[in-house]
Amino acid sequence: MAIRFTLLEGGAAGPRLGRLETPHGAFDTPVFMPVGTQATVKSVSPAELYQVGVDIILANTYHLYLRPGPEIIAAAGGLHGFMRWDGSILTDSGGFQVFSLAALRDLDDDGVTFRSHIDGSAHRFTPEKVIAIEEALGADIIMPLDDCPPHPAERSRIEAAVERTVRWLERAVRARERADQALFGIVQGGVLADLRAQCARAVTSLDLEGYAIGGLSVGESFEEMTATLAATAPLLPVDRPRYLMGVGTPDYIVEAVARGIDMFDCVMPTRMARNGTVFVPGGRLVLRHARYADDLEPLDPGCDCPACAGGFSRAYLRHLIRAREVLGLRLTTIHNLRFLTRFMEDLRASIAEGRFESFRRSVLARFRRPGGEDHHEAGGS
Amino acid sequence: MAIRFTLLEGGAAGPRLGRLETPHGAFDTPVFMPVGTQATVKSVSPAELYQVGVDIILANTYHLYLRPGPEIIAAAGGLHGFMRWDGSILTDSGGFQVFSLAALRDLDDDGVTFRSHIDGSAHRFTPEKVIAIEEALGADIIMPLDDCPPHPAERSRIEAAVERTVRWLERAVRARERADQALFGIVQGGVLADLRAQCARAVTSLDLEGYAIGGLSVGESFEEMTATLAATAPLLPVDRPRYLMGVGTPDYIVEAVARGIDMFDCVMPTRMARNGTVFVPGGRLVLRHARYADDLEPLDPGCDCPACAGGFSRAYLRHLIRAREVLGLRLTTIHNLRFLTRFMEDLRASIAEGRFESFRRSVLARFRRPGGEDHHEAGGS
Repeated sequence: MAIRFTLLEGGAAGPRLGRLETPHGAFDTPVFMPVGTQATVKSVSPAELYQVGVDIILANTYHLYLRPGPEIIAAAGGLHGFMRWDGSILTDSGGFQVFSLAALRDLDDDGVTFRSHIDGSAHRFTPEKVIAIEEALGADIIMPLDDCPPHPAERSRIEAAVERTVRWLERAVRARERADQALFGIVQGGVLADLRAQCARAVTSLDLEGYAIGGLSVGESFEEMTATLAATAPLLPVDRPRYLMGVGTPDYIVEAVARGIDMFDCVMPTRMARNGTVFVPGGRLVLRHARYADDLEPLDPGCDCPACAGGFSRAYLRHLIRAREVLGLRLTTIHNLRFLTRFMEDLRASIAEGRFESFRRSVLARFRRPGGEDHHEAGGS
Repeated sequence: MAIRFTLLEGGAAGPRLGRLETPHGAFDTPVFMPVGTQATVKSVSPAELYQVGVDIILANTYHLYLRPGPEIIAAAGGLHGFMRWDGSILTDSGGFQVFSLAALRDLDDDGVTFRSHIDGSAHRFTPEKVIAIEEALGADIIMPLDDCPPHPAERSRIEAAVERTVRWLERAVRARERADQALFGIVQGGVLADLRAQCARAVTSLDLEGYAIGGLSVGESFEEMTATLAATAPLLPVDRPRYLMGVGTPDYIVEAVARGIDMFDCVMPTRMARNGTVFVPGGRLVLRHARYADDLEPLDPGCDCPACAGGFSRAYLRHLIRAREVLGLRLTTIHNLRFLTRFMEDLRASIAEGRFESFRRSVLARFRRPGGEDHHEAGGS
């Protein structure tokens, strides 16, 4: 096995505590994975990621395939060597980006043909091709090409996506040449519980090292998402990590953890930071508001991130964000990353100490916002 | 005196070694000052500036007056507190930016009226107003409002600029309220030696703490610039620091040091870094060139900057620059800053060891490029 997962607390449903070991380190779950689309978590150095407690990041196969190309990354020793990050890495399959970013995509049962969003050049992804790219990229955990239909979609379209996702997974399994990477299976099925169950049965029959729930946070309601999670997670093997793709703000995380999820990724915390919105214990702080123009407090006096501990004031950060200065988004990004690593520490402690329900209520009171449409957006970080 | 300058070697002309003490530290001259237009050296944190050996930075009064405004900066303890930089700071007068960036400027003998390049709002700078702004910003060294005509200009226009610059300097001196900042006088006069001499006589008669040569690197030829420096620098008091405004690439620096200049600032090293061009011992390296696509060497194997010592390859940096990733310009910027601080160390050592002329020839062979038009560009960093 390329990875080792130890379930420390919890079971098939409800909050779980675990430990995941990869060839590049061990860390506790539930875990949040910052997104490093183009082999960099936007604006942040690897040293800074270590500093704020990040253990694993996600990189986007679609983007890295197009630029700089898998050969260049492989020659540099894979993503770890290329970007000088010795922590763990997960690569997605690129399928989601093909459907959300690329032009003129053409889906068939064998794969998907598309044009680059960068230069319009024509390309084709098949399950085998994606595995070859991900083996060149060399992440610790890799995802198979799947068919992720938009929401809403006809039942027949979702049925087709489930069948295709399962067939493509079987082809991905056969195409693998490296044994030092963990391949996760992806469960599709929209918000239809019977199709989720059908897909989960087929995918888990392949005995993979982990399982992902895809096709959520694509426009469905918060209630549809949580209901789908509640119906799907218990069908996954209790002793394998479960990864909810594209979700990662505090409110969504606690609700997914409550339903048995172990791993998360999301561009929102870093993207909103670049626009000047940061997480603080009370909720979200929008730096552009005029009230912060002369506010000499740090973002969060209790935070130990380089922005807060460094004494940079809200007034200064607001100035930098308004003036479009890179240092501004660097500091807000590193703050939000530290907020989330500490949030996950607190979440795990609440499970270990038997007070997850009160933690969950507190999080929802501070971070729940109407609508769930701002999460899994198109096209990487 | 707000600052103390000790001339350690050299005289009225030719290369000099000195030591400059300000309320925020002491450092050797000749010195290069990175430009931090909007209270940040673009993309770099104060901790990183310390790390690569920067002692003093320049900030732009025009930009900071417009945004966030001097009141907010003063309330934060001045620029040092606002941007959390404990090293030395010099602020320019804003005059150059008014003439290069602002719209609808209207110059008269009392001051200059202009419209903000940000929102079109109307503003007026007078010598007194600029001193008040710079006292609120609280830099260690401040510059008076001057009249910097374009190049080329009629002799009568340059004569008027010299007269106005001197009159405005006298008003600036009278307007000062703080004693803990050093005010430098600016010598104008275009490339006309007699007007430079006339201006130098008038400006130095005021017995200021330092002197600047303005109005160069605005489009004149390399030869015109060096001839003007050779004619002007010897007219300045030997025991005061001399600052050549807006100049700061290796070839220009050695030629100006050869003519008795002690202080430099320039946006080029950081601006070219953001475009992917870096200084290496052999000259300039343009990362966008295809030859670096799979080059796994660092920018300069002998460099101790965070980019080179961190093991980031040319291939990775090229990828980041092409993908417009912030980490790319962060790393190229910090590399160029470290290159320049080490370049100044080497330059000072060559003077101390009596081998400046061979150092100078070596620099010109590697860094001299035809045309001198890419230096003092419009509008800050």
